[in-house]
Amino acid sequence: MADINDLDQLRAGIDECDAQLVALLAKRNSITGQIGAIKQQTGAPLHAPDREAALLAARREEAISQGVNPELVEDILRRMMREAYQNQQAKLACAAANLSPIVIVGGEGAMGQLFAKQFQRSGYEVKILDKSQQHNATEILRGAKLVMVSVPINALESVVKSLPKLDDDCLLVDITSVKQAPLAVLKAVHNGPVVGLHPMFGPDISHWVKQTVVVCEGRDHHVAQGLLQQLQVWGCQLVELDAKKHDEAMQIIQVMRHLTTFVYGQFLAKQSHTLAELRSCSSPIYQLELMMVGRLFAQSPELYSDIMLAQFDNVEELLAQYQDTFAQTLEKLKAGDKDALMSAFAQAKAYFSDSTAHFLTQSRSLLNKANDAKVLD
Amino acid sequence: MADINDLDQLRAGIDECDAQLVALLAKRNSITGQIGAIKQQTGAPLHAPDREAALLAARREEAISQGVNPELVEDILRRMMREAYQNQQAKLACAAANLSPIVIVGGEGAMGQLFAKQFQRSGYEVKILDKSQQHNATEILRGAKLVMVSVPINALESVVKSLPKLDDDCLLVDITSVKQAPLAVLKAVHNGPVVGLHPMFGPDISHWVKQTVVVCEGRDHHVAQGLLQQLQVWGCQLVELDAKKHDEAMQIIQVMRHLTTFVYGQFLAKQSHTLAELRSCSSPIYQLELMMVGRLFAQSPELYSDIMLAQFDNVEELLAQYQDTFAQTLEKLKAGDKDALMSAFAQAKAYFSDSTAHFLTQSRSLLNKANDAKVLD
Repeated sequence: MADINDLDQLRAGIDECDAQLVALLAKRNSITGQIGAIKQQTGAPLHAPDREAALLAARREEAISQGVNPELVEDILRRMMREAYQNQQAKLACAAANLSPIVIVGGEGAMGQLFAKQFQRSGYEVKILDKSQQHNATEILRGAKLVMVSVPINALESVVKSLPKLDDDCLLVDITSVKQAPLAVLKAVHNGPVVGLHPMFGPDISHWVKQTVVVCEGRDHHVAQGLLQQLQVWGCQLVELDAKKHDEAMQIIQVMRHLTTFVYGQFLAKQSHTLAELRSCSSPIYQLELMMVGRLFAQSPELYSDIMLAQFDNVEELLAQYQDTFAQTLEKLKAGDKDALMSAFAQAKAYFSDSTAHFLTQSRSLLNKANDAKVLD
Repeated sequence: MADINDLDQLRAGIDECDAQLVALLAKRNSITGQIGAIKQQTGAPLHAPDREAALLAARREEAISQGVNPELVEDILRRMMREAYQNQQAKLACAAANLSPIVIVGGEGAMGQLFAKQFQRSGYEVKILDKSQQHNATEILRGAKLVMVSVPINALESVVKSLPKLDDDCLLVDITSVKQAPLAVLKAVHNGPVVGLHPMFGPDISHWVKQTVVVCEGRDHHVAQGLLQQLQVWGCQLVELDAKKHDEAMQIIQVMRHLTTFVYGQFLAKQSHTLAELRSCSSPIYQLELMMVGRLFAQSPELYSDIMLAQFDNVEELLAQYQDTFAQTLEKLKAGDKDALMSAFAQAKAYFSDSTAHFLTQSRSLLNKANDAKVLD
């Protein structure tokens, strides 16, 4: 019969394993740091998908041969890779030295700072032009080879129009979440090369590897190639899209989702149950959904209202469509019309087609991770 | 200047580290297996929160002293703990031998199978009573000390009413996602002890540790204590709730969220953009939201329509409220009424109050994990 001493001894064994793990991580960090330095010198991209795939495959195989769950090994290795990318980005290769000096207009905002820091890590000379440097704009912009505008969407037009004239060889870039109108403004103001980017991430990413950036052609697209190469060196995944197509897709996903989430948050706030009560009896999936709703309200009411208003003209029709779909669903439910519900369900199912299985696997894995991280009260 | 040989050599060093990691995991597995055996013998719960917290704190401290990111260490340790729980649940302690034999009505369904397997791991004698055993129901139920009903919500009443009479000391349990009506049915049919459970997880969990189970009192609650202790031995977190309060909370979270997700899926299906197009330019947060919508449509149209119809009577008013909130938001947008939007935003923000910061941190960490797992096309 086992006793408490056995348990203590076994737990000491676990602690020893875990201490070895920490030592192993320290050693791995030092090696990935050296690899980072080589990547910086040779200009190799931070993200090496082939090496990543080979590394994972080899260790999965080894796991199987040692009776260890390969999923466990892959999950841990992927987490270690994040750490490596994070450490390696302290000093990054420069892919287009001819784009220096760079000016970030709105460089004191969160996204502006993120880009400024990243360009600096790649050795670019970066100047900030924000409200407090306004009086010195001409001086700051003199000789700039790349000007990136990183301001809220509803300020973009006035900010761009008030810029001093840029050199004709300067690449003018914006990073707002809308692309048609901003690109038109940029092209109206500037005679030289123009490109529109939409980084599909916020200022709080831990590294740039595998982050998606949508690229919309503006003018003299060949001049933008240096910038795009730089993004790829940082590990970004580029998606080239027509500005119109991009804006439509954003309206469907981003704007509509924002608005329905906003409505859902208001709806919850009207209920007599507190958030704590609802959370206490939420499954992981609803915890996740509450989290998605709740995070929206971390933003500033003013900033958020401005964004909604700026986007409204373009999505009025979509909102009406959503409202109709909602009303029709209610009718079917009221009428107890099971056949109609099933056919509506089947239509949406067809749209998601093969992806439902993928989404299930993916969300299952993510929910497992959410449960791992759960801290009980 | 570094060259390609240096890189190869460094990568060999990484491979060596990672091979050591696999060996370490094998060793850790063998120790946690032994700990599991002791827990089974002593009846100790699978989840030891104090030990877990102490282990994490000690290794975080060690990480800091060795210049390793403590978050990295904690993430990896939590993932290893999941593995340990998964391995340790192969054989579990029995907390209430007097509840054996157990009959699972609907034991061929996914949730029924999950419970049957878990009871068996704890040494209970488990019998299945599903459609194919119907002719033998009396025989199967004879002498049962615990009968758990695990059937779809709209079948519950007829299934329970058609059961042969149970012994008066038998504990009758249901696990549907609604609690008031099922408990009333159980109490009408059976004279003995009754308890309602709502497991806040699906059949695809990798282990039971930290999973929430809502417990609603039925009759002779002291008899249910053995079952509740058993759930705690498995690591579950129990939330005792009044059945009415539970049902209201479920209507707000689960039912409403299902219906709005259903509407959103139909809305997406009507758009001219394919899912692949939308996904190509989605940020991680929208990937996550698309995943939440898409996973719903992995279900059977018939089963899902039945669920919606069964729930509709109770949520008709909530749906109307949601619809109103949606219409009011549209009005504010149409009128360009920024003040009204800001005040609506502020109200919802107040509801989420301090949790917004928590939700932000939590979702950031989850999005990082989603990015780790990203496989580029």
